[in-house]
Amino acid sequence: MKQYYSYENFRNDTQKLILEVKNFNAGAIVSVARGGFTLAHCLAEGLDIRDVQSIRTELYDATCKRKELSLFGACSLADVSRVLVVDDIADSGETLAYVMQHLQKNFPEAVFKSSTLFIKKTSIYEPDFWINEADAWIEFFWEKDFSLAG
Amino acid sequence: MKQYYSYENFRNDTQKLILEVKNFNAGAIVSVARGGFTLAHCLAEGLDIRDVQSIRTELYDATCKRKELSLFGACSLADVSRVLVVDDIADSGETLAYVMQHLQKNFPEAVFKSSTLFIKKTSIYEPDFWINEADAWIEFFWEKDFSLAG
Repeated sequence: MKQYYSYENFRNDTQKLILEVKNFNAGAIVSVARGGFTLAHCLAEGLDIRDVQSIRTELYDATCKRKELSLFGACSLADVSRVLVVDDIADSGETLAYVMQHLQKNFPEAVFKSSTLFIKKTSIYEPDFWINEADAWIEFFWEKDFSLAG
Repeated sequence: MKQYYSYENFRNDTQKLILEVKNFNAGAIVSVARGGFTLAHCLAEGLDIRDVQSIRTELYDATCKRKELSLFGACSLADVSRVLVVDDIADSGETLAYVMQHLQKNFPEAVFKSSTLFIKKTSIYEPDFWINEADAWIEFFWEKDFSLAG
């Protein structure tokens, strides 16, 4: 079952998330492409964070038996002490777990926290800040409202 | 005078922009931070482009007399032949002009086109695709709807 997540839902949840995340005092945001982009933008505006960067993951069929996650996009965070990593949903949780580990390894002196709108019960990773538990397949407005198939 | 630009306005205009940009067949999107992030995300969904990267500019007071624009964020576009660069508005036009020149210089074999929702009459640069001419100060929903003061 798909559950449509409208802009109005998003606005209300993102306003709540801003209040939760505010005290972390992040100096930069890293957005996970594509899913995290709209949330990262609106969090950055609400929290008045100008330094917004992005990172991209791809899942490859490395062998017949397992898939491998690859990361693209070099972040420049050497001068930042607190970084908020943003994605829309912790679904399997693998992407966010991998991104957090990668960033922490590359910038060992910075503190990284993660935030999403949704978490699935089955996620292997729990973001530091999240708003909703997802039971159904969430169909975000950015996925539904711009589909050429309509 | 400020003119509020709601999500409904954005949805309608972005749907139009998708139809205009579609035939360019971009293989990747470069989003100008922060302003281009939500549009880049929704264009990427509508156009089914998975490769979404970002670039960030800062205006420095280099001397008392003039300001200098600096670019942050390395894009990896070596394997992409057609790239869509996305920002919300061509205001002075300096950011987009600079970003386009920088990307073209770094990836001389790729074709770059730019798209925005708005262009100001006074912009020194005209994006390849745009929807509205801006007379007033546009207050985008991502600026207004998440303001803690608001």
